[in-house]
Amino acid sequence: MFNSILHRIVDETPGGIGAVLMGYDGISIEQYFRPDAGLDLNLVAVEYANILKEIKKAAEILHLGGMEEVSIRTERFYLLVRIMTDDYFVALTLQGDGNFGKGRYLLLREAGNLKEALA
Amino acid sequence: MFNSILHRIVDETPGGIGAVLMGYDGISIEQYFRPDAGLDLNLVAVEYANILKEIKKAAEILHLGGMEEVSIRTERFYLLVRIMTDDYFVALTLQGDGNFGKGRYLLLREAGNLKEALA
Repeated sequence: MFNSILHRIVDETPGGIGAVLMGYDGISIEQYFRPDAGLDLNLVAVEYANILKEIKKAAEILHLGGMEEVSIRTERFYLLVRIMTDDYFVALTLQGDGNFGKGRYLLLREAGNLKEALA
Repeated sequence: MFNSILHRIVDETPGGIGAVLMGYDGISIEQYFRPDAGLDLNLVAVEYANILKEIKKAAEILHLGGMEEVSIRTERFYLLVRIMTDDYFVALTLQGDGNFGKGRYLLLREAGNLKEALA
């Protein structure tokens, strides 16, 4: 179930590398990578899980409302994160020349399915 | 100089609230807010400056290449950050129904001018 959703997000995003459904504790429920990924998305997500927790906490302190989405662009990659529940997020990595907008749209489109599967 | 650039970014972005040019140490060089901002962007930027430093460090550890852009969407706001130099970033806040794409474009368009002014 989770795997087929992640599969769809990655494969339908031009430049998509991989997607992972993970808890803020850095433990992943499910992940899917393109065979030629060239990037350990799981390691990336673990490294960023803690930072996401801090962003979330800061948003609460500052009364910005609940965190919904975080994106990070580096010279080589895009990392797109969508918050699922208080405990889980889904992260998608794309090549730097990938379609950021399409990835964002797909994360939003599949968020409902992932939430249902998590419930 | 800095002020007129920040002014331009905020005023040309539909839903733009304010912009700040800040160091990772949380000390701002310049800032501009719409009079009716309803959000202390300076406080937001200070709170997030340290988190940005951690995102940057993680990107280096993971060999993702230099950090270029970070965006955070909450229920009520968008926070868009563009990295200027190793020491400074510019942050723009928009209303949640503001034009994210236009803000991103303007930050990119004015990045050269800000870097020149910083040099």
